[in-house]
Amino acid sequence: MKLYVIGIGPGGGEDMTLRAVNALKACDTLVGYPVYVDLVKPLFEGERVLTTPMKREIERCTMAVEQALAGHTVAMVCSGDAGVYGMAGLILEVAKGHPELDVEIVPGVTAALSGAAVLGAPLAHDFAVISLSDLLTPWETIAARLRAAAQADFAVCLYNPASKKRADYLHRACEILLETKSPQTVCAIVRNIGRQGESSRILTLEQLSQTPADMFTTVFIGNSMTKVIGGKMVTPRGYEARGTL
Amino acid sequence: MKLYVIGIGPGGGEDMTLRAVNALKACDTLVGYPVYVDLVKPLFEGERVLTTPMKREIERCTMAVEQALAGHTVAMVCSGDAGVYGMAGLILEVAKGHPELDVEIVPGVTAALSGAAVLGAPLAHDFAVISLSDLLTPWETIAARLRAAAQADFAVCLYNPASKKRADYLHRACEILLETKSPQTVCAIVRNIGRQGESSRILTLEQLSQTPADMFTTVFIGNSMTKVIGGKMVTPRGYEARGTL
Repeated sequence: MKLYVIGIGPGGGEDMTLRAVNALKACDTLVGYPVYVDLVKPLFEGERVLTTPMKREIERCTMAVEQALAGHTVAMVCSGDAGVYGMAGLILEVAKGHPELDVEIVPGVTAALSGAAVLGAPLAHDFAVISLSDLLTPWETIAARLRAAAQADFAVCLYNPASKKRADYLHRACEILLETKSPQTVCAIVRNIGRQGESSRILTLEQLSQTPADMFTTVFIGNSMTKVIGGKMVTPRGYEARGTL
Repeated sequence: MKLYVIGIGPGGGEDMTLRAVNALKACDTLVGYPVYVDLVKPLFEGERVLTTPMKREIERCTMAVEQALAGHTVAMVCSGDAGVYGMAGLILEVAKGHPELDVEIVPGVTAALSGAAVLGAPLAHDFAVISLSDLLTPWETIAARLRAAAQADFAVCLYNPASKKRADYLHRACEILLETKSPQTVCAIVRNIGRQGESSRILTLEQLSQTPADMFTTVFIGNSMTKVIGGKMVTPRGYEARGTL
């Protein structure tokens, strides 16, 4: 009884680790959100594919656990990493009480890393990852984390910066960051990382505050040392301050 | 003129993405710290291998840039991700003034993600990544970030928790976290992620404070919701609070 929770990276295919590909190939049943299932289907050698729509995560995880308990070798695929805002935790909660089920988490390249690589090296020093979705987290908690990250000068990566119902959340987040941070702070957005139509743009925090985002956007906010070098966003590790460069 | 900065994941081999493997295979010159070079050598098809010892990062990056400018196709390999405390930023700084050089950053699975997968899902909600090394960052900055992360209830992943010269840094960090966080907070350490002798241990923040660490250790500190489920460390995304599980 084996259930793999697999992070497939930003776009599947080339962005998967060899471990993720091998785990997928070992399975006879593939479970996931339809978009992610389609990304990895060319690498899947089994025949059973089960999907549930968005916001049906608990159903999806229950289905994966039930399939594995019924004797199938199951791959539950997640975009990016299996853990970071992924299904790994929920699978472990749903599988509680079934010690006979072997759950293996296969990590993947989350959007903070894949988006950073598109931009340069914005997260090369201490950073915080914050989701702006208040579906499962009160906005006050999100606001407190934004404030703390700004005050302690973390570089920040924002997931889920906006959706149709939350069109102004990125603007609200920027307003909080601007309480502490310079309006000239180097920021960037990346859209459709690793997929068709990938695009990115470097801009100031002031500009970011007026920029629309959607659920395909990942946002990067520099720390006070972040700069633009040859069109790339770079947060130094401190070698310059050390006087050695 | 092409220079790839490649994140090879925690242990190289199976932990690399297909993109990283393909980039490595396209190169005739391999540059890196000796341990990481050895991890990927079986996949490298060129003949020129150049290494520099630890703490000689600027030399290493300068060497990689010079080789690429001389016409070689160069792979600079980094453990984990290319950006997170990696060489990508330094390469871009060193390559400044050479727009003819094509630098491509290939992201990889950083220790925060690979260690999390070993433990369960400790970083499934907002988290902060902090290095305890004060070689390039003043301790006051590190302490302020620890304090901010604790106060805003981030899950936290600590890199470089100790070294021979900094034997008590993890203890000092825990003391700061304990100003705010419960001594019963669920924490964990993982050693040698993805390599021979990989091991992990879940423990309380109070116990962590008395636990030795070394440069092969990655440390995870839960938020106030983090719990142990079937021997795994899980930070919920909030489905339970929503009353749907």
